Amino acid sequence: MRLTRTLLALSLLATAPAFAATGLDAGDIAAAEGLRERAMRGSEAWNVVESLTTEVGPRLAGTPADALAVEWAEAKLKAMGFDRVYREPVTFPVWLRHHERAEVLAPYPQPLVVTALGGSVGTGDTPLDAEVVAFASLDALKAAPEGSLEGKIALITYRMVRFKDGRGYGPAVGARSNGAVEAARKGAVAVLIRSVGTSSDRFAHTGTMRYVADVPRIPAAALSNPDADLLEHMLARGKPVRLRLDIAAETVADYTSHNVIGEIRGRDLPDEVVTIGGHLDSWDLGTGAIDDGAGIAITFAAGALIGQLEQAPRRTVRVIAYANEEQGLYGGKAYAEARAAAGEVGDHQLGAESDFGAGRVYALRAGVDPAAWPVIEKIGEVLAPLGVATERTGGSPGPDVGPIVAKGAPWAQLAQDGIDYFDYHHTANDTLDKIDPRALDQQVAAYAVLAYLAAETDVDFGSLPVKTE
Amino acid sequence: MRLTRTLLALSLLATAPAFAATGLDAGDIAAAEGLRERAMRGSEAWNVVESLTTEVGPRLAGTPADALAVEWAEAKLKAMGFDRVYREPVTFPVWLRHHERAEVLAPYPQPLVVTALGGSVGTGDTPLDAEVVAFASLDALKAAPEGSLEGKIALITYRMVRFKDGRGYGPAVGARSNGAVEAARKGAVAVLIRSVGTSSDRFAHTGTMRYVADVPRIPAAALSNPDADLLEHMLARGKPVRLRLDIAAETVADYTSHNVIGEIRGRDLPDEVVTIGGHLDSWDLGTGAIDDGAGIAITFAAGALIGQLEQAPRRTVRVIAYANEEQGLYGGKAYAEARAAAGEVGDHQLGAESDFGAGRVYALRAGVDPAAWPVIEKIGEVLAPLGVATERTGGSPGPDVGPIVAKGAPWAQLAQDGIDYFDYHHTANDTLDKIDPRALDQQVAAYAVLAYLAAETDVDFGSLPVKTE
Repeated sequence: MRLTRTLLALSLLATAPAFAATGLDAGDIAAAEGLRERAMRGSEAWNVVESLTTEVGPRLAGTPADALAVEWAEAKLKAMGFDRVYREPVTFPVWLRHHERAEVLAPYPQPLVVTALGGSVGTGDTPLDAEVVAFASLDALKAAPEGSLEGKIALITYRMVRFKDGRGYGPAVGARSNGAVEAARKGAVAVLIRSVGTSSDRFAHTGTMRYVADVPRIPAAALSNPDADLLEHMLARGKPVRLRLDIAAETVADYTSHNVIGEIRGRDLPDEVVTIGGHLDSWDLGTGAIDDGAGIAITFAAGALIGQLEQAPRRTVRVIAYANEEQGLYGGKAYAEARAAAGEVGDHQLGAESDFGAGRVYALRAGVDPAAWPVIEKIGEVLAPLGVATERTGGSPGPDVGPIVAKGAPWAQLAQDGIDYFDYHHTANDTLDKIDPRALDQQVAAYAVLAYLAAETDVDFGSLPVKTE
Repeated sequence: MRLTRTLLALSLLATAPAFAATGLDAGDIAAAEGLRERAMRGSEAWNVVESLTTEVGPRLAGTPADALAVEWAEAKLKAMGFDRVYREPVTFPVWLRHHERAEVLAPYPQPLVVTALGGSVGTGDTPLDAEVVAFASLDALKAAPEGSLEGKIALITYRMVRFKDGRGYGPAVGARSNGAVEAARKGAVAVLIRSVGTSSDRFAHTGTMRYVADVPRIPAAALSNPDADLLEHMLARGKPVRLRLDIAAETVADYTSHNVIGEIRGRDLPDEVVTIGGHLDSWDLGTGAIDDGAGIAITFAAGALIGQLEQAPRRTVRVIAYANEEQGLYGGKAYAEARAAAGEVGDHQLGAESDFGAGRVYALRAGVDPAAWPVIEKIGEVLAPLGVATERTGGSPGPDVGPIVAKGAPWAQLAQDGIDYFDYHHTANDTLDKIDPRALDQQVAAYAVLAYLAAETDVDFGSLPVKTE
């Protein structure tokens, strides 16, 4: 198939030199500009995320709401005119939050706002009472002497820094992921972290954490940032601070959810696919509006706009609503493994995911064969009126695209302004009102242009080096 | 005493005509300017509110934290150098919140964020399941036909409007105060209101509500604003929306708390008093930082600065930490009644309260005898460099000053910028981080100037018409 396409490209080169490097002609560009303008006049995206957050709401992977969300996604993709709508199984363990309470017992009794981290065990039949010991970072905790936290609660007070591109998340999230293991290694009975979030609103941020073999599994929870401040103020007075922690949470039997897929079938090369998508699951605290109802809505709406064109693009545009991204990229991994098993990774021309909230797109980045850069540049030209700059370096695939990229598939990124993303992310405050419908339209415009032109060209985006785990 | 003072004023008039109308000389103005500059270089106020929110935290009237707060206030006033520190009893019924939960049962099950309104009864031994009927305002609810809400939950969706001076509160708060009575009159089994607040953060705002004789007492709660949006989105689909409401709350036996008072005794006229203050109690959800830890901190710090002067002002500056403002101005009423019983209302030269958060002061207003306006104008001149304008009309006394004003005492108001006050007010999000220490210093400067000059002058601020209830 690649050979045929190359021959076709060569014949086009002979007749239309100006477009040879991109495989796109003036009509293709006009069609992409039309998609862009149509999205900017008002897309369906806000209605889609309104529907998901209203009719399904929070949809923690493996709960009844997860099943409702899968049904919702299938019905919505069909209603939006996708040619083919289907689901693929994704299996994972189910974590359930039952309740969570915390309070200061001494020296200054008062309640605290906390939330259990995803995957955490509970405190057992009776609440856990212990003194808290603070560390400025995960590294500081790691440096504590062995056994020095025996019977104590470790508190990590690291403050996430706000950036447009969210790069403050990486340095902060280690405390969430690994705090329990490192604290338990020192003898701690629980770990608390300052929320991995940039807001001073009194919401605690959840998110996954992990355990490892041979280290005791201790409860792990995040304090809201004002509550972390409060504990720091108490500790500064030099008296022992004792807390009570009461968490009920458990991991139960495996569950099979589904990636839900809708396609606009390609007119010439239907087996070659360009994928866009978001993740369908959410944390349980908010209604999953910005994480990732927005990504679902943007990519459903972009795909639907392409489906409304008089002529479908050459390649298939596949919109994927990934299952259980939050607890370990289960949907993205299952998708990649299924493609690898079927020998279809090579059919993946370009993959992109919207999973960074509802802020405007400001940059296009890609990981493709250098020979395909003229296509990326051409796409960038059509995106430029949206305020999107093409950047030749940097970037990364979306979380659920990562697994198939590791198997060699090329990717693109529409980088979004995430300056306030971590104010809401993984909190009860992730609700519909945080989404600006006009910003959503701009994103739909960007995804529609990207997906359409990547599907319309027949230039091969190539293969990336395969990563071995 | 008033006669003596008038004679003294007349004698000053003879010797110092420029200052005659204000009773203030250049040395007094210089002292006031010194207070202003000292406060602006950094006052103690932030440390005071940090201490109150850290060491006491939420202090719902009548709870153990209320007693702790009274002890804290006495100790703090003594430590800050006030001459006389004492407490006066204030008795009121105690309302306790035990728990509150709400969820949508159908057609789209998901949890809701609610908080019981202060004074509400609970839902009883089993949760209350009922269909919700929405009204755009309290007036719309009042207009519903008799009996039309039989077995239903009434929902009032009125949206509070944001203004710098908080004037959106009045039109909104009626639903909170009277919603339960009006809904019960139509047969409703509970009332829910959109929070009386301007934030779209997912916090529900509490606050007092009332019952009346001969109307059934039904539970009353506020939804966070995103949750009110959510119910409106559900209702817009035209299907019945059923909720479950589970509230445990009760009003128990009377409790006696205290107004806590600190004085800088006047050097010439110690029985004449200028009062400033805030209220010591808070709601239980936040730590009472802006409502009204800020007011306590500002006025404690302003009084302490006056106490550090080489020479005390002529009159006594009395700083009052009022008990239980939140549930019905109990502290202000008890204070006024005690003064009336002792025949001391006439000793009150000017009263001001800081109870509008931690935003900067932008206007001085007053209710005084017209003959005393030159003093107010002179105070305004010293406040002008702080960005404070003197306004000859409008304004009102602080809530706890109202009761003694109703008995004839004059008042002043330092109007604060409350543009974000109702984002935090009465929610879990009322925490220390919401306070800008520099804004707090500006307020301390304004209160110190006001209290000092009002206490230093011997011009009589007069009496206002006595209001009969």
